[in-house]
Amino acid sequence: MEIAQNFMGPLATNTMTRINENGNVVGSIIVNCEGFPETTTLDSLTAATYSTHMRNLSHHASNALKEIDVTDELMVLRLVSRKSEAVVAPDHEFHLIVVMRRG
Amino acid sequence: MEIAQNFMGPLATNTMTRINENGNVVGSIIVNCEGFPETTTLDSLTAATYSTHMRNLSHHASNALKEIDVTDELMVLRLVSRKSEAVVAPDHEFHLIVVMRRG
Repeated sequence: MEIAQNFMGPLATNTMTRINENGNVVGSIIVNCEGFPETTTLDSLTAATYSTHMRNLSHHASNALKEIDVTDELMVLRLVSRKSEAVVAPDHEFHLIVVMRRG
Repeated sequence: MEIAQNFMGPLATNTMTRINENGNVVGSIIVNCEGFPETTTLDSLTAATYSTHMRNLSHHASNALKEIDVTDELMVLRLVSRKSEAVVAPDHEFHLIVVMRRG
């Protein structure tokens, strides 16, 4: 959480803390524009795996959206699987990924 | 809706009707395993565009999930954009895509 604190200010830290307080949240990751996890509450291997895949997926989704409507913009991508749920909120500089267990 | 009626039985037709009755639903598409829209309430160009992109995306998402946990399975993929929301529920034979306006 140090990186969130130092580079993104208290608002990001508060948001991360608020998200992680939710009982269904397994962990969250902030991914930088190069695809590396900046800060996470997951172990580093899981964080790296999610970062790579979710970033690629949101990139594909964003491109697909632009082909459907060039003025549209991806806000959230949500994957629901049998075991878990992963949400990615892409931004210009950082991506926020949240992994949840299914309720 | 004829194809849903003839090939997928009354349950699929009822589900499609129920989904399309929701005020926020712009349209729905049933895509076959070859990626072609079988039945849709959208115009054919929009249906074809969504079918191609959403099928590719759910394929990517499914592969990503398998790399994270090989025993897991994608159930729903949801794209929220500034203007709309698209949901794809993949299945072995057919994919169901629903396009909604944002509430």
